[in-house]
Amino acid sequence: MSAEDRLQELGLTLPEVPSPVATYVSFKRVGDMAYLSGQGPKRADGTYPTGKVGTDVSIEEAYGHARQTGLGLLAAMKKAAGSLDKVNAAPDFADHPKVINGCSDLFVAVLGENGRHARSAVGMGSLPNNMTVEIEVTIRVLP
Amino acid sequence: MSAEDRLQELGLTLPEVPSPVATYVSFKRVGDMAYLSGQGPKRADGTYPTGKVGTDVSIEEAYGHARQTGLGLLAAMKKAAGSLDKVNAAPDFADHPKVINGCSDLFVAVLGENGRHARSAVGMGSLPNNMTVEIEVTIRVLP
Amino acid sequence: MSAEDRLQELGLTLPEVPSPVATYVSFKRVGDMAYLSGQGPKRADGTYPTGKVGTDVSIEEAYGHARQTGLGLLAAMKKAAGSLDKVNAAPDFADHPKVINGCSDLFVAVLGENGRHARSAVGMGSLPNNMTVEIEVTIRVLP
Repeated sequence: MSAEDRLQELGLTLPEVPSPVATYVSFKRVGDMAYLSGQGPKRADGTYPTGKVGTDVSIEEAYGHARQTGLGLLAAMKKAAGSLDKVNAAPDFADHPKVINGCSDLFVAVLGENGRHARSAVGMGSLPNNMTVEIEVTIRVLP
Repeated sequence: MSAEDRLQELGLTLPEVPSPVATYVSFKRVGDMAYLSGQGPKRADGTYPTGKVGTDVSIEEAYGHARQTGLGLLAAMKKAAGSLDKVNAAPDFADHPKVINGCSDLFVAVLGENGRHARSAVGMGSLPNNMTVEIEVTIRVLP
Repeated sequence: MSAEDRLQELGLTLPEVPSPVATYVSFKRVGDMAYLSGQGPKRADGTYPTGKVGTDVSIEEAYGHARQTGLGLLAAMKKAAGSLDKVNAAPDFADHPKVINGCSDLFVAVLGENGRHARSAVGMGSLPNNMTVEIEVTIRVLP
């Protein structure tokens, strides 16, 4: 089954990849690698859920935020690779370890075995705009 | 001298590489690169030393934790590359700058010149399970 | 216009690349990639501005620190790649999101389109020697 089929089966729609707002870009291709800028759990109206996980936001809610962040990353991957079926997930960098499975689980659900990845889960001191979660990923683009 | 000889000379034994517990993996090969998941200073009984370096844990103790973490990373490198003599250390990402030399020194002691690496030492806000140290590394697998 | 011409036009001089002080190095070439160690806003006399951005240091000052850090990274890039005109910026990892544009803007000013990069801006818990800013970068060396 293709990644697009899996997305449809899961009832998921990829968001728009945002245009770069400063002197950096959503992703950068270097050879067959693509480095994606860190993303947060952007809502459809462009806002972000805020607060510290564990105090302002429950683990269950934050799992959902990590999943939402993963959808945005999948959208950027598709743009970087041309097709989600050409994505091979490499490392993954993430805030808030207890909730990052929300993103990891989504990657495997959509990308299959190619979605399995190395990762480091760490708790940051703070995140831009007080976002709950930020996740960065690198992929290899399959030929 | 081979890396295995150096390990023996140092009286060190590599731990088992843990099986993946979620939808992520201990390392991911992409071409000739291998991205290793972040690790902490796991003890033989599977537990981790906890606390904040400088308050709960001394610099000297934490240097030892970074070294212990380095052993786990060497074990994962060996599994990823097939042999420690095929490892070329690339970047290194670490918490607790004052202690990360415990890992850097071990890499050079075991891997020789190939163990020299770029690194960024930063202090995280928090780490999974209140671990003292977390280190991530990327390697190139030599032909 | 070459990157060196742009530097001159901006009235900027690259600092010396510091010699490695421990078992790590300023940069590591692996194939056509080069991984640079994290750097801070080193002054000409070798000291660093310290403090937390927002409390001890203003956003405007910290933007300048990020730019200063970017100069040190450009110096390391030049050494790693042989020439700044062979640099293609890959990902960028940085503390203190509100100020990191100081570095991003400099990269594009000096490197042109090749200086555009993916990045993740996060707030660390602490930095070595209480530095205000730390930035890490990976580049691809063009043939």
